[in-house]
Amino acid sequence: MQPGKRIYFEDVYPGLVLRSARAITMDRDSITGFARQFDLHPAHLSEATAAESMFGVFCASGWHTGAVTMRLISETMPIARGGMGTGVEALRWLRPVRAGDALRIEIEIVEARASRSRPGAGVVTYRCTTLNQRDEPVQAFTTTVLFPRRADE
Amino acid sequence: MQPGKRIYFEDVYPGLVLRSARAITMDRDSITGFARQFDLHPAHLSEATAAESMFGVFCASGWHTGAVTMRLISETMPIARGGMGTGVEALRWLRPVRAGDALRIEIEIVEARASRSRPGAGVVTYRCTTLNQRDEPVQAFTTTVLFPRRADE
Repeated sequence: MQPGKRIYFEDVYPGLVLRSARAITMDRDSITGFARQFDLHPAHLSEATAAESMFGVFCASGWHTGAVTMRLISETMPIARGGMGTGVEALRWLRPVRAGDALRIEIEIVEARASRSRPGAGVVTYRCTTLNQRDEPVQAFTTTVLFPRRADE
Repeated sequence: MQPGKRIYFEDVYPGLVLRSARAITMDRDSITGFARQFDLHPAHLSEATAAESMFGVFCASGWHTGAVTMRLISETMPIARGGMGTGVEALRWLRPVRAGDALRIEIEIVEARASRSRPGAGVVTYRCTTLNQRDEPVQAFTTTVLFPRRADE
């Protein structure tokens, strides 16, 4: 997508794949900082507590990966008027995100249909996969979001 | 639960409800700070951009509500060795979280069974509901997490 361009319902179709223009590196301080604020799991707080945890390795909170993914979504697919999402399905953390991992995303449009209840909007289902620098998926989910129609503006 | 007590598989059973001992207030600065870092949706960045957004009201990012919920989970149900969760089902943002809303959680254990693949662990499914100061649910999800057994320690 062009920088600065806002995305409308008319711009997406099943099979369209959008890739983030950049990756975000999960450095050690951001992992421990997020954990101290939001997720006190020992695997995310330090290498020493992680070694004693069920994960056994120091890794990012899944909610941190989710938040960084949302940042990449808002850059990669800047929906006009923000769109309206109200949940996600089957949020999966597939591999540990380690300090130094650089995360990028791929968005695949699964379905796009007119909204019955909101004539000015379309209903778009997409799958978002977050990958590390080795192209291994670390997170995936599916979500359904309202996009405004261009005719509605 | 007692402060400082770690939770094992043997401590939970279907129907058990755990409530957070405190609420976390979503003040305006924390909402906009999280949004600037993680979610550039106009509804979360300022009142002015929110008015033009599809939501129409200034409210917190759903991922912010999710992260604050995780903080409350880690205080309310501090699983021994952190437990091991690898995803959530049907994450739903049910109402906008407004500046000043005070969020608390309720965890209900849905199922608890022995793990077939890990004899030292149990598989626990719970539903987590996040509520505001009017006791209105603002978020809900279900998740399945490995808990260590006490005998395994």
